[in-house]
Amino acid sequence: MITLINMQNESLLLMPGPVPMPERVRFAMARQAMNHRGAEFELVIQETTAMLKEIFCTKNDLLTISGSGTAGMEAAISNFCQGRRVACLVNGKFGERLYEVSKRYGDPVALASDWGTPLPLDALEKELEQGAEVVTLVHNETSAAILNPAEEVGRLAKKHGALFIMDGITSIGADKVYVDKWGVDVAITGSQKCLAAPAGLAALSVSPKAWELQCKNPPFYFDLPAYRKSAAKNQTPFTPAVPLYLALREACAIVLEEGMEARIARHRQMADAVRTAADVWGLSLFAKTDALHAYSNTATAICYPEGITAAAIRGKIKDLGIEVSGGQDHISGKIFRIGTMGAIGAPEILAVLAMVQGSFKKAGYSLKGDGVSAACEVLFA
Amino acid sequence: MITLINMQNESLLLMPGPVPMPERVRFAMARQAMNHRGAEFELVIQETTAMLKEIFCTKNDLLTISGSGTAGMEAAISNFCQGRRVACLVNGKFGERLYEVSKRYGDPVALASDWGTPLPLDALEKELEQGAEVVTLVHNETSAAILNPAEEVGRLAKKHGALFIMDGITSIGADKVYVDKWGVDVAITGSQKCLAAPAGLAALSVSPKAWELQCKNPPFYFDLPAYRKSAAKNQTPFTPAVPLYLALREACAIVLEEGMEARIARHRQMADAVRTAADVWGLSLFAKTDALHAYSNTATAICYPEGITAAAIRGKIKDLGIEVSGGQDHISGKIFRIGTMGAIGAPEILAVLAMVQGSFKKAGYSLKGDGVSAACEVLFA
Repeated sequence: MITLINMQNESLLLMPGPVPMPERVRFAMARQAMNHRGAEFELVIQETTAMLKEIFCTKNDLLTISGSGTAGMEAAISNFCQGRRVACLVNGKFGERLYEVSKRYGDPVALASDWGTPLPLDALEKELEQGAEVVTLVHNETSAAILNPAEEVGRLAKKHGALFIMDGITSIGADKVYVDKWGVDVAITGSQKCLAAPAGLAALSVSPKAWELQCKNPPFYFDLPAYRKSAAKNQTPFTPAVPLYLALREACAIVLEEGMEARIARHRQMADAVRTAADVWGLSLFAKTDALHAYSNTATAICYPEGITAAAIRGKIKDLGIEVSGGQDHISGKIFRIGTMGAIGAPEILAVLAMVQGSFKKAGYSLKGDGVSAACEVLFA
Repeated sequence: MITLINMQNESLLLMPGPVPMPERVRFAMARQAMNHRGAEFELVIQETTAMLKEIFCTKNDLLTISGSGTAGMEAAISNFCQGRRVACLVNGKFGERLYEVSKRYGDPVALASDWGTPLPLDALEKELEQGAEVVTLVHNETSAAILNPAEEVGRLAKKHGALFIMDGITSIGADKVYVDKWGVDVAITGSQKCLAAPAGLAALSVSPKAWELQCKNPPFYFDLPAYRKSAAKNQTPFTPAVPLYLALREACAIVLEEGMEARIARHRQMADAVRTAADVWGLSLFAKTDALHAYSNTATAICYPEGITAAAIRGKIKDLGIEVSGGQDHISGKIFRIGTMGAIGAPEILAVLAMVQGSFKKAGYSLKGDGVSAACEVLFA
């Protein structure tokens, strides 16, 4: 594990993305320009694609797009949802985004629950019975730090013959994701989250069933059949963001060097340490779990208790050199979120937890117990 | 001027993009991840935007998109051409691409001439008289190495009240482009060409008139009003490709340190040297110029004489460590193209010309004269 020292005026990011990157990843970008139509770059695409397939646990086609995770979402929606009955599961900001993107291409139904609460799977089943042809899901909803039941949604979609589009942007590469086993027809990830590469690339896997149902006339830049045709020659249809590919190749290599099993265990342990600290402090977590919905292992959302402001906690922490995230949209100021993603380990987790604990003390709030020590025990386990 | 030494197995790229990047640009990317919603990144956007406006010679809004030049093209077309009568000027591959993208959003008219020959401006005037509402032009068509008359097209568009969309991907930052003076409503560039930054960012300027005519429901990822709203706060609507912005900021700074006038003169001199060599060799240039159409100053397309193959010239040059481009599509194998863009100067130009001269000799072809010496004279001037 590579750990990071906070130096100069660079903040250490413990947010749900972007995340600290290993040195090898960062310096891979400094290479002089190469011909993206030459053999050397073809090898970059070939190796990166093969590694991503392993990380996605899929034998499906794996395509990369120079653009953000949202570009990946729109590529999925515009190629597979136009004119179809689409059921969008929503319990956070990114679920809402998939719904918003879907609205550009048809008339989707939002099956929503409050942010961070279990999804209405009964309503999904009804919607599927009534003929929904596509289901969209955000696997790990970082806005609320909840891990949604992708396997169960995949089972329901399959039962009713619907396509299953899954945003795995903050789970793939850090938590359990089995694209083929779960029947995910289109799985999407972004480079700057669990893979610990820089932002700017999206990757999508596309199943044979999805290809059969591919829609005509998606946006030119998101024309997935063109990407598929180029990918067969280890190329891209449009000029690729070469340094980001060089970084992503290195990042994927590091993921597989660590090994997915060890990597998942590490992320779960880091998140467990954060959750344990919150519990010992007597602070509540924002997400509401049940038998199917779990806490996220790549981000933890902790509620501010009465009388405590974001400025007193998140602001103070930032002063000491670590950035954690706040709440988005209507839960702004109500929660703070600690990311457990990227090239980080016990030092970073303990540093941020000590800062949280200290900032509460500074604010005159009496936490129930010593969360830092409890987290340390989890990390030593 | 920064010049580059070809080392190890890295080819020196003298293509019409991607191009060699200055060291400062490359190493700017190696920085650890930063919060793209924080003050430091806002400053990156602010500075980069201000410098791009200076390079574009515009006071219009200037927006950046994480994606290739084609993403920039599609953003322009999808926001300003839907359901409109669009006249696409075409005399090369990228003119064709603007036409192809336009077809996704309506029923454009292609006003085409053979690749590398003067555009049918009479036909454009007729089309405008008959009510064309938008004109698209590729200013510098690298596929044929011809510089198209942007100022004249701008004059015609303005006369008829039409919007003028200009692809300046291989002219902005290296040749004369005056967006406001020429009445360009939407000007597009890409990062990896004349700015000598890595591929992966597109920049667009948008005039007040274009904003008035902005179309509803462009693709979500290309929703320019969302970019405009974010840009007002020095942000981006979707996660930006941070390392590419860091590189682009450095690249723009270098452009302005050199000064646009000096930079344009340097590019013209380099292209002049290449054209002089071709002339002395007795080889013909592919582009056909007239009073309004000139040779490109960022790329030169030279025709292979009878009996000489791409393998004998371009292939040989590559063996010695420099990559030049061939012809695309139907002119593949008929021309080779030398790019005069990026962090290069006299050493690179003379090296490639010496290789071309040597490869012809090796192929048993008797060139008319010593192009290398003639080019050297141009560069010493």
